[in-house]
Amino acid sequence: MTRASDARFMALALSLGRRGLGQAWPNPAVGCVIVRDGWIVGRGWTQPGGRPHAERVALDQAGEAARGSDVFVTLEPCAHHGMTPPCANALVAAGVARVVVALGDPDPRVSGRGLKILREAGITVETGLMEDAARADQAGFLSRVERGRPLVTLKLATSVDGRIATGSGESQWITGPEARRVVHGMRARHDAVMVGGGTARADDPSLTVRGLGVMQQPVRVVVSRRADIPADGGLARTAREVPVWVCHDADAALPGVLADAGVDGLPCAVRGRNVEIGSVLSALAERGITRVFCEGGGSLAASLLQADVVDEMVAMTAGLALGAEGIPALGALEISKLAEAQRFELAELRPVGGDVMARWVACR
Amino acid sequence: MTRASDARFMALALSLGRRGLGQAWPNPAVGCVIVRDGWIVGRGWTQPGGRPHAERVALDQAGEAARGSDVFVTLEPCAHHGMTPPCANALVAAGVARVVVALGDPDPRVSGRGLKILREAGITVETGLMEDAARADQAGFLSRVERGRPLVTLKLATSVDGRIATGSGESQWITGPEARRVVHGMRARHDAVMVGGGTARADDPSLTVRGLGVMQQPVRVVVSRRADIPADGGLARTAREVPVWVCHDADAALPGVLADAGVDGLPCAVRGRNVEIGSVLSALAERGITRVFCEGGGSLAASLLQADVVDEMVAMTAGLALGAEGIPALGALEISKLAEAQRFELAELRPVGGDVMARWVACR
Ligand SMILES: NC(=O)c1ccc[n+]([C@@H]2O[C@H](COP(=O)([O-])OP(=O)(O)OC[C@H]3O[C@@H](n4cnc5c(N)ncnc54)[C@H](OP(=O)(O)O)[C@@H]3O)[C@@H](O)[C@H]2O)c1
Ligand SMILES: NC(=O)c1ccc[n+]([C@@H]2O[C@H](COP(=O)([O-])OP(=O)(O)OC[C@H]3O[C@@H](n4cnc5c(N)ncnc54)[C@H](OP(=O)(O)O)[C@@H]3O)[C@@H](O)[C@H]2O)c1
Repeated sequence: MTRASDARFMALALSLGRRGLGQAWPNPAVGCVIVRDGWIVGRGWTQPGGRPHAERVALDQAGEAARGSDVFVTLEPCAHHGMTPPCANALVAAGVARVVVALGDPDPRVSGRGLKILREAGITVETGLMEDAARADQAGFLSRVERGRPLVTLKLATSVDGRIATGSGESQWITGPEARRVVHGMRARHDAVMVGGGTARADDPSLTVRGLGVMQQPVRVVVSRRADIPADGGLARTAREVPVWVCHDADAALPGVLADAGVDGLPCAVRGRNVEIGSVLSALAERGITRVFCEGGGSLAASLLQADVVDEMVAMTAGLALGAEGIPALGALEISKLAEAQRFELAELRPVGGDVMARWVACR
Repeated sequence: MTRASDARFMALALSLGRRGLGQAWPNPAVGCVIVRDGWIVGRGWTQPGGRPHAERVALDQAGEAARGSDVFVTLEPCAHHGMTPPCANALVAAGVARVVVALGDPDPRVSGRGLKILREAGITVETGLMEDAARADQAGFLSRVERGRPLVTLKLATSVDGRIATGSGESQWITGPEARRVVHGMRARHDAVMVGGGTARADDPSLTVRGLGVMQQPVRVVVSRRADIPADGGLARTAREVPVWVCHDADAALPGVLADAGVDGLPCAVRGRNVEIGSVLSALAERGITRVFCEGGGSLAASLLQADVVDEMVAMTAGLALGAEGIPALGALEISKLAEAQRFELAELRPVGGDVMARWVACR
């Protein structure tokens, strides 16, 4: 029986779970709240690197108070013995009375089995509370499991007329410091940040999250057929602190200087002169990446759109015009009829500092 | 003495005044509220074509009740004998007790003289209530009087990447019906709608306000050096119903077929191969235009930005990407350093149907 206060506890569990976005991969970012006699006795979320799981953290916090409690968890508790004992069994052992689950686990090793373990132990199990919100939060994990590729977010930071730099290439700074901070927050909530080889060579970007005290930096992914990134650049030099993965032609080896620097190569299929996007994304999914944040440049962004894999576009727009000589945010898309262009739906809109942030999600 | 309820009445007067935007030129769009013993006995705003004035309308509505009343008017009542007797004298004749004015009139024929007539008749006069709001509403009128040019609003309706059409030229429809309705509302609140010769020739646009029941259509202005617009096009054919003004080279006459169709020529200075923007705007101001709404194309829009006369940019953005082959919203601006680009401040931001509307005002 669902109680009036259940939604409040589940909303809390969801917000705890979101703290793990970008930190929990290859595992889903889950939240858990344990309630005894109306009091919250345990709160947990998937820890950096994916364990301990949310339920384990919350159970440890609750201790003896977990006995007879109500547990709110955003995703079906796991049932398979991996590196940790299954959470379903841990909940049984703790003697909880009732488990409310937002979303079933799509992972075939888990699906329904976690719930079964709980029910067979006499625990009351309810599912589907705030399922849509949970599904949105798990979009990356679901994408990896169901589609074999991570969720893809494309960021565009442009002038009002869609330019990312002046004709002479100056791009610092079009958007203001608040917008850049928001972008760093978005990086932190993705497992990986991705750019094309052109950007890696032209900008020598660090692609790390700065100023937000994150536990685990996103993996830095560069798509470059011949793994052509400077060995003395910022990415290669810091590859041992924060991973750098280069998606390159499977028929060519990663250059020794890069391998020596700790850069990792992901061999991919090639199509024409480019690395094939589908191959890039499945290689990332195989490595456990659930959410990838693409920051350009225009050629890679265009390839993602042409491959129809952009799930979200985040457009940061500054209040200035740069004109037709400015560098466009996107390369050619080969769209001649409007009907061929993929439509996106507005999901979020707000001013950020002096700029505008619009989040668009793909209509599927 | 300002009373607590004064702001409420002035806010009403301002909102009434705004009904006249785009309709009242060459006169300012003014609002007036007459209050007797706390009751509103008269409301008025400048009527289409600029007369009767707001005060006259409100006084007529109030009749005998105007005697001893408080009058709230958004702009200083006029003092000069034009085609109608001065409003200041009309207020005196009606025996009002007190006049509260938001903004003094910058027109040298009026400035301070309206207030003087009222004071000399023993009427209590207060000024400056909600002056900033009044100044914003009068921006077009103030621009014409103080700068000798109308307020210029530039509209851009683009994809997320700043394109107004696909590479093959298809542009109908990037934005949705709600956004187009909002654009028609904006046209209606401007005295004139302006396009470049390229758009007039390529699109044969009607540029009228449809579906909003407006009293007076905005003047349709085309900027074209040789007045090169098709004599059998929609603009020329309807020039007798809704004015069409062509800003052309003063050294060349308006083609006879256009003159015969009722198209009006505004002789302007020329600079290089183009009509000079300053000359276009002062010609419009001389004709009484206070607010002009530019709807493109990219070349004219770029010229306006280069001339640094864009006071507002309205960006309607649709949730799709068209890529680098798409037609850009703006032509070349010859900006090489970001610092050279004029900055705009966000004044309004909201979703409109499936699109985004952002209104940016020039930082001066
Ligand atoms: N202001 C901003 O927000 C911003 C953000 C990012 C970039 N930028 C600017 O954008 C410019 C770089 O843009 P860009 O378009 O030239 O480069 P890009 O998109 O970063 O990289 C393109 C390169 O990636 C490699 N690549 C491999 N597979 C690909 C695929 N499937 N699709 C696309 N590219 C693939 C190719 O190089 P290989 O030969 O290595 O395979 C290709 O030349 C720089 O000037 C940078 O400053 C600005
Ligand atoms: N989707 C949309 O929202 C939208 C809106 C508007 C236009 N469009 C498209 O834009 C295209 C036309 O754009 P465009 O850039 O070629 O034409 P445009 O800006 O409409 O007009 C440019 C022309 O105006 C005249 N002109 C005179 N003085 C000028 C000055 N100071 N600055 C600029 N132009 C001046 C010149 O022609 P003369 O030789 O006549 O002097 C010039 O070639 C069309 O394809 C149209 O469909 C789309």
